Amino acid sequence: MVRAMGRLLRRQGYAATGLQQVAREARAPIGSMYFYFPDGKEQLAAEAVSRSGGDLGRGLAALLEASDISAAVRAIAGAMGEDLVRSRWMNGCPIATAALERAADSEPIRGAASAVFDQWETLFFQRMCADGIAPERARRIASLIVAALEGAILLARTRRSVGPLEEVADQVAEWVATETARCGPAQISSPASAPSEKKPT
Amino acid sequence: MVRAMGRLLRRQGYAATGLQQVAREARAPIGSMYFYFPDGKEQLAAEAVSRSGGDLGRGLAALLEASDISAAVRAIAGAMGEDLVRSRWMNGCPIATAALERAADSEPIRGAASAVFDQWETLFFQRMCADGIAPERARRIASLIVAALEGAILLARTRRSVGPLEEVADQVAEWVATETARCGPAQISSPASAPSEKKPT
Repeated sequence: MVRAMGRLLRRQGYAATGLQQVAREARAPIGSMYFYFPDGKEQLAAEAVSRSGGDLGRGLAALLEASDISAAVRAIAGAMGEDLVRSRWMNGCPIATAALERAADSEPIRGAASAVFDQWETLFFQRMCADGIAPERARRIASLIVAALEGAILLARTRRSVGPLEEVADQVAEWVATETARCGPAQISSPASAPSEKKPT
Repeated sequence: MVRAMGRLLRRQGYAATGLQQVAREARAPIGSMYFYFPDGKEQLAAEAVSRSGGDLGRGLAALLEASDISAAVRAIAGAMGEDLVRSRWMNGCPIATAALERAADSEPIRGAASAVFDQWETLFFQRMCADGIAPERARRIASLIVAALEGAILLARTRRSVGPLEEVADQVAEWVATETARCGPAQISSPASAPSEKKPT
């Protein structure tokens, strides 16, 4: 049920999704919905936001372990673009639509979305710190990466083109690579040098 | 009516907004709604997206005429943050929520949103070209600026903090300033020099 709600939130958002539709999509009796989620649709949606966000977070963590931030940003944008095309522009971010619709008046949904974005930012932040970028700066860039990717999905869905995702990811990846190349060596007191592999501390 | 619809789209999105509520908010008889907008809520929403986007576009054009891109990005983020706080986190972007909700299945709303984002990007693009940034690169950065600002509103509303708007704007502004300083002089074949005023061609 939580996964069915997550899929519907991606496609059409919160207000357009009824519990009947979630039950149909999940092939579950609607009664079981009220059994597991006594607070109803809002509770189910908050749960779906947390679950989807957690799944994406695990994917992101694996990516950041296997490659650098620039490659991770490009890989995420690539995966999102493929998913958009495959779903015929239906599948947006499972967090963003519900968050925008209900941020103002649903504390459970707002809180769940906020925790997800925090988790994603923290993953980028930690990787940048390991790359030698100063914490304050790493926090700003992590915020920018998450914001840029979320905005890029919005632009891509609106234009029905993966172009914005690719452009945004390329530009962010390039600037972050410059940053890593510049800030990494600075820590070992050699301010200007060519980009090179840096090991996490 | 169009403005009332625009205000409601910002606060709660498309699906949650009924024509009755628009009529109440606009203090107009509901019959007049069907007279002016025979295609109903979808037509009114597409119109509201265009109108709100156009208003913001005029503000952006004025900003970009009066200051450089970095200052414009910071000013927009500042204004959006003030509006968020004043509205107690109710007022999001008048385009984004409806676009995410209906991008997949409403061509009028998708088209209106797409035209608005195009217009905003074009304004940044033209200013960057005037600043001497190569067109292909200027297009990517323009895309990134719009995406980053849209994503930053999402993060700010979700966290109930203007922090993400400020952080994202600061980082984008800094990178764009570096870009302008670096690319501008390159055009007049002096590749490395201090940032300086560049006149549009």
